[in-house]
Amino acid sequence: MLGRLYPDEFCSSARALEIVGERWSLLIVRNAMFGGITRFTEFQRSLGIAPNILTKRLGEFVEAGIFELRSGDGRGHAEYVLTRKGRDLQPIIIALTEWGDRWAAPDGRPVTYEHEGCGGRVKVTMECARCGDNPPDTSVKVRVARRFRDAPRVWSGRDVKDRPA
Amino acid sequence: MLGRLYPDEFCSSARALEIVGERWSLLIVRNAMFGGITRFTEFQRSLGIAPNILTKRLGEFVEAGIFELRSGDGRGHAEYVLTRKGRDLQPIIIALTEWGDRWAAPDGRPVTYEHEGCGGRVKVTMECARCGDNPPDTSVKVRVARRFRDAPRVWSGRDVKDRPA
Repeated sequence: MLGRLYPDEFCSSARALEIVGERWSLLIVRNAMFGGITRFTEFQRSLGIAPNILTKRLGEFVEAGIFELRSGDGRGHAEYVLTRKGRDLQPIIIALTEWGDRWAAPDGRPVTYEHEGCGGRVKVTMECARCGDNPPDTSVKVRVARRFRDAPRVWSGRDVKDRPA
Repeated sequence: MLGRLYPDEFCSSARALEIVGERWSLLIVRNAMFGGITRFTEFQRSLGIAPNILTKRLGEFVEAGIFELRSGDGRGHAEYVLTRKGRDLQPIIIALTEWGDRWAAPDGRPVTYEHEGCGGRVKVTMECARCGDNPPDTSVKVRVARRFRDAPRVWSGRDVKDRPA
């Protein structure tokens, strides 16, 4: 765990960033998730990350329950294996990739995510659980749970009580 | 733009993190997107962020085309307004929030995203564009575009050519 850097933040996106918001964090998870990497030396080689930073990040991930440290692969190498909590980061990684494909990929889309077996492209979509629509970004509003409306930090510079919902 | 911290990375998720991977970045975007915040003092107050860091982040965002700096709101205050590129970060923020709701929200879900008008909850889903299924995370594989297979960094510690696709 990286510590409460946003002590007054109650929103789950802030809490999530406390755990996975460091630069290398999601790339480490990505390489485990899609590259099948489990060993320290493989993470290091595949990312070109400094060993001391990698040691720190993997330790934090194990502490946060994102990776589980297993004692060996039969040849004495410790293995870092994603837990359910870690695998649940998949939509974030795919959403980041899609944004990068659109806005930061001048040479075209470098990787695609495929549905195994079917071979179709897997995409992240926003969907309304009630009507089934895929709303445009301007139609998505935030509603703060009642018990959090007096929290020290709110989403807006204005008083949250002045806002709808 | 934060500079190429991952010079050997070709994947769009790495390129996206170069732009929005710093701790505060996505919270600034979140407060603009869902809190309607446009002014420096509002960002500062709503996040409790140090002014020098906020100045740096907003400057980088304007340079990267995520915010557009408008000269005034009629009372002489400069306004930072999200561009299309910035608004396209919405699925990443919602996916982060959902992960935090599941794994870092001991007091329950602090905010929900609502479909305006309909009032339904907006969720991020992974969907196969071919068969329409919502594949489990274990059924999503990565395919590296042919022209990137000799890139210096690959997803795996093994040679990418040894891997399917």
